[in-house]
Amino acid sequence: MSLVVIGSVAFDTIHTPRGSAVETLGGSAVHFALAASLLGPVRMVGNIGNDLTREHIACLVERGVCLKGLRLREGKTFRWTGRYHEDMNSRETLSVELNVFGAYPPELPPEYADSRFVFLANGSPIHQMRVLSQVQAPQFVALDTMDHWIESNRKDLEAALRRVQGVLVNDSEARLLTGRDHIEAARAILSLGPQYVIVKAGAHGACMVCAGETFVIPAYPTAHVVDPTGAGDSFAGGMMGWLARVGDVTPAAVRRAMAYGTIIASFNVEDFGTRRVAALTPQAVETRLAEFRKIVAF
Amino acid sequence: MSLVVIGSVAFDTIHTPRGSAVETLGGSAVHFALAASLLGPVRMVGNIGNDLTREHIACLVERGVCLKGLRLREGKTFRWTGRYHEDMNSRETLSVELNVFGAYPPELPPEYADSRFVFLANGSPIHQMRVLSQVQAPQFVALDTMDHWIESNRKDLEAALRRVQGVLVNDSEARLLTGRDHIEAARAILSLGPQYVIVKAGAHGACMVCAGETFVIPAYPTAHVVDPTGAGDSFAGGMMGWLARVGDVTPAAVRRAMAYGTIIASFNVEDFGTRRVAALTPQAVETRLAEFRKIVAF
Repeated sequence: MSLVVIGSVAFDTIHTPRGSAVETLGGSAVHFALAASLLGPVRMVGNIGNDLTREHIACLVERGVCLKGLRLREGKTFRWTGRYHEDMNSRETLSVELNVFGAYPPELPPEYADSRFVFLANGSPIHQMRVLSQVQAPQFVALDTMDHWIESNRKDLEAALRRVQGVLVNDSEARLLTGRDHIEAARAILSLGPQYVIVKAGAHGACMVCAGETFVIPAYPTAHVVDPTGAGDSFAGGMMGWLARVGDVTPAAVRRAMAYGTIIASFNVEDFGTRRVAALTPQAVETRLAEFRKIVAF
Repeated sequence: MSLVVIGSVAFDTIHTPRGSAVETLGGSAVHFALAASLLGPVRMVGNIGNDLTREHIACLVERGVCLKGLRLREGKTFRWTGRYHEDMNSRETLSVELNVFGAYPPELPPEYADSRFVFLANGSPIHQMRVLSQVQAPQFVALDTMDHWIESNRKDLEAALRRVQGVLVNDSEARLLTGRDHIEAARAILSLGPQYVIVKAGAHGACMVCAGETFVIPAYPTAHVVDPTGAGDSFAGGMMGWLARVGDVTPAAVRRAMAYGTIIASFNVEDFGTRRVAALTPQAVETRLAEFRKIVAF
């Protein structure tokens, strides 16, 4: 089934205890699309500046990602610079230049209007809803958000949550949104509208709640974490990629989809930026998933 | 097979965001024994003061725990007071009175010398090794420790690690011991001697490494955490209780044993002190384990 992601294309400058990468291709839509394209076709919507060349996005072209939704805008591409702390679980943003990312609301090309699976990567809930209204008959829409929108735009975010089937948040965002922790937080978010609430806890895995079911999945035990940037979007890409591939949104499908997300995210953190996932094959994903099943067996 | 625990018997005063409990029965050996006794016989070794009455330990008697190794000493029983922070993942110790716990090294009654499974709860590594030397032919010895011993008694701790088959540490202790995180830390501890290294991450589950295998298990998603005190010892009790029951220490047995530990620890945190585990039946453990298998399936 057709899958579209709406999000950012960025140049990331990343410092981690393992080293640095300067102005490497990143952004939520990029990480998502590279992950999802391992499982099936994916369409990308986002703004790019005129400093982004064909060469920069060669990895997306090679993977067959549809780039018709990338809109060239006058100005520079979104830039983010951040530094991870020793334990890799926390980071600080050193600088953000929104540039063309924040200046224009995303626009869906008319040929994407028939998309059935939609991922609204982290962004203004007003923009998220504006682009969602351009999709004719979505089957499954999932939304990502962050502390900034929860704190400054809660009303719009709550309106958005009533219009989507799935929401992905991390542990601290779930707490900020509900004042509760872990599974309690996830259950509280269910009452805000979505059918599926997925709470990501980075190196500690993820959980999902829906009516009548709870699912927990540990992270794949990656030995050497180099750069966590984009892990959450890789997870979402693997998850939505699988759902779109099977065209099924039952709890059993969402569980399997989260396993794919877990595996692709585990590759993502093994090198800077998109390097590892861009070089990945579907076979490598299947191999690690089979290994993961052995790792969690009891 | 015969299982013995050497550890503390305590009166705990606990403050959590859900309430308080004053001078409630606790201590590593108590939490361990109550958990292990759900799966089979268990022997307890520890010091008690003359302020501890038969009534205080009625829950252990009812569960058939062998208390011959509880040694009455002149003085007061160990006391601990602590406060958990809002997220329940961190706590501060408000006061400690070692009393009879710290004053005397533990002594094994002669009839316990044939114990095959031994759990050395957190304590001085010198005391741990002194008591271990009183066990004739242990099959599987597991040791717990804490930051205090890693920092102040590292040499003795390393000597102890060379004499045990299993070690249980939490995430931060593993980091302190090795300077690494998660799975990398666990693998580094393997090289110090034990065959099995188990790293507990509280609400985030646990992992185990041994030669050639890695195992990760999430925590059971308890909705309402009331008091995490004793969760680690309940985990260890469930784990060692299962190993002693099956008399088997293969990686497959350790995985299953950690699942029992996970389940009993999940009950432990649902009420203050020992209340929940003391009231538990083996059937309730099996029921939740079966439910847990559904929760983690993908």
